[in-house]
Amino acid sequence: MRVLIIGGDGYCGWASALHLAARDHDVTILDNLVRRRWDRELGVSTLTPIRSMPERLRAWERQGERPIRFIRTDATDYPALCEAIATAQPDAIVNFGQQRSAPYSMIDRDHAAQTMINNTLCNLNVLWAIRELVPQAHLVKLGTMGEYGTPNIEIEEGFITIEHKGRRDTLPFPKQPGSFYHLTKVADSDQIYFACRVWGLRATDLNQGVVYGLHTEETSRAAELVNRFDYDGIFGTALNRFLVQAVLGHPLTVYGQGGQTRAFLNIADTTRCVELAVESPAPEGTFRVFNQFTQTFSVLSLAHQVQRVGKTLGLAVRIHHVENPRVEREAHFYSSLNTNLLSLGLDPVLLTDEIVASMLESVRMYRTRIDRAQIMPKVQWKGLALRSELGFLDSERVG
Amino acid sequence: MRVLIIGGDGYCGWASALHLAARDHDVTILDNLVRRRWDRELGVSTLTPIRSMPERLRAWERQGERPIRFIRTDATDYPALCEAIATAQPDAIVNFGQQRSAPYSMIDRDHAAQTMINNTLCNLNVLWAIRELVPQAHLVKLGTMGEYGTPNIEIEEGFITIEHKGRRDTLPFPKQPGSFYHLTKVADSDQIYFACRVWGLRATDLNQGVVYGLHTEETSRAAELVNRFDYDGIFGTALNRFLVQAVLGHPLTVYGQGGQTRAFLNIADTTRCVELAVESPAPEGTFRVFNQFTQTFSVLSLAHQVQRVGKTLGLAVRIHHVENPRVEREAHFYSSLNTNLLSLGLDPVLLTDEIVASMLESVRMYRTRIDRAQIMPKVQWKGLALRSELGFLDSERVG
Repeated sequence: MRVLIIGGDGYCGWASALHLAARDHDVTILDNLVRRRWDRELGVSTLTPIRSMPERLRAWERQGERPIRFIRTDATDYPALCEAIATAQPDAIVNFGQQRSAPYSMIDRDHAAQTMINNTLCNLNVLWAIRELVPQAHLVKLGTMGEYGTPNIEIEEGFITIEHKGRRDTLPFPKQPGSFYHLTKVADSDQIYFACRVWGLRATDLNQGVVYGLHTEETSRAAELVNRFDYDGIFGTALNRFLVQAVLGHPLTVYGQGGQTRAFLNIADTTRCVELAVESPAPEGTFRVFNQFTQTFSVLSLAHQVQRVGKTLGLAVRIHHVENPRVEREAHFYSSLNTNLLSLGLDPVLLTDEIVASMLESVRMYRTRIDRAQIMPKVQWKGLALRSELGFLDSERVG
Repeated sequence: MRVLIIGGDGYCGWASALHLAARDHDVTILDNLVRRRWDRELGVSTLTPIRSMPERLRAWERQGERPIRFIRTDATDYPALCEAIATAQPDAIVNFGQQRSAPYSMIDRDHAAQTMINNTLCNLNVLWAIRELVPQAHLVKLGTMGEYGTPNIEIEEGFITIEHKGRRDTLPFPKQPGSFYHLTKVADSDQIYFACRVWGLRATDLNQGVVYGLHTEETSRAAELVNRFDYDGIFGTALNRFLVQAVLGHPLTVYGQGGQTRAFLNIADTTRCVELAVESPAPEGTFRVFNQFTQTFSVLSLAHQVQRVGKTLGLAVRIHHVENPRVEREAHFYSSLNTNLLSLGLDPVLLTDEIVASMLESVRMYRTRIDRAQIMPKVQWKGLALRSELGFLDSERVG
């Protein structure tokens, strides 16, 4: 199939692009490389030395794999997006083209606005472009389990049947997003559902859990293919951060009580889920929602696992409960369905002690690249922005 | 109280500004006058000859009423918005600063994008500005009953208690917005609810029904105070359009079967509801939702009422079922609560035959200003945009 991957230079996008190309899909990456610019703006860096896009793609071709095309453009630029889609004529469009950090979106008004415009304008553009140019194309949108928040009832996959005062309807599952980033993902879902209802588009919403891990089968084939691995307070996710802290001998920074329970999955499963979604398109007019995770953990239980496994590798791992920079429940009910992807054939990579050990070894390889200044969280949901502490370059003002 | 009204040059904003000033509130209007520019772009015009903002405000002062200040600026410009808020130091901010036409948002990608950026960036800016400058101020946001769509269960006011698999939670009422405009209003609501939860802001969401009517007690005091009255296919709402069609001898354009049932209210009740919300602020940290309507009607029943009353005034009114340009259910269950505003003391102006007759008389006064070319709808939810038929000036491309 012809697959256009928007945001194919990012963490999930790059791994997914290689995975699809390795399965003989005809892959085009569209990316404006803004993720690398955000790193520079914030003075943070991936643990791994990722290469430029041309180097990455040449290394991929050297593997004897099907070449991947690259279009450097910004999906918020509608004419440019249309040109790319008209050229690529995709059967599926996978949209990773999003600012995906909750803390980034909470830095200040400008970063909230940038996130909103980048994500939601991109999503809106993709919908109109599909409608105008490739109405049969299947949109695969990366969402997040964070759209749902932490309701006190089981989280269904996208829709819930509600009985109310003697009547009944199946309606979108209520959302309680927890940051300006998460708000944009909810807005995207609402727009896509509308476009499916009204224009008859076909779409799959992959509500991802927190992704962890570094290597996939494809990214580990050559040094030039290595994926990014973020551990800083802005872009790093919980487990990846704990792994780096453990290797560094820094106490694991558990936010508050650590009873926050979230859904997780391995980056290798992300690529497999995207493959499953692409290869089984949603029917015309259908907005299909998959909850894309394999396990749920509390943040504290993850820290305990890293501590336990670290010990076997000779790492003395301490756990510190730091003041929670976010506003969230620290002890709550959490249960969610994830049967749709399993029924399509997902065979999960579970978070065994062996997996944790191998990730710790991988991180250890890059130990000298760790910047201690990026370990502690700096963005507060409630406090005002610490622009000076973040050491910003002046970013453009939006709007 | 000091009240900042964003979008105070529009239909509901202008009437509300006068109403609050007449009750001795200290009113500042912030508006970029873009609504008038959209009229020019689309080649449409209000039925009534509205005056420039300086003429309007001078006429108001001549009534011996408390003067209203005017700041001409764009709320999507964050520094300008902050300056205005720092100057006005409002106790309440009423946000009408929105592109509020569903058909406008469906013209094409550019108008959808413009609507999204205008509405949601404005809303986001207002939230950050309140947080940074006037955290105690009460935000009154104009929403729409259209956020809910037409679910098969009774519509509650903002939240619904759901029992599910033996557990229970009170969650945001599921939304099914029916246009890119309606999507922006849902995004706004989600952002505001978040800001109340996380930052402790106080807000009231007024989910308005379809507003009809021309005069309020205040706007009828002088010719220069007259409100705008839209009857075109883009900005005109159902009843207002029927009134103009009836006066013109044009068949009433009922979309499809006309079984679409919606919530309605008189413009005079809009101003009263805004007053009630402003004078009883939401508590700190609370996102309060009021469904702001007084009656529900099917579109066809409204047409029948206009036909019946028209006859008594010597108007031969025919009804035509035209092809529905929208994608919506034309026969469906509809029931919604609206008890919150009634319990605050709203005494509704109901749509009696006398009211319809007096509106028909008002419209008759402006008969010579009616542009027949604006009677039929031109924007299709499903077809592609008819830019040429709409006779556009070239609009700026967004993003």
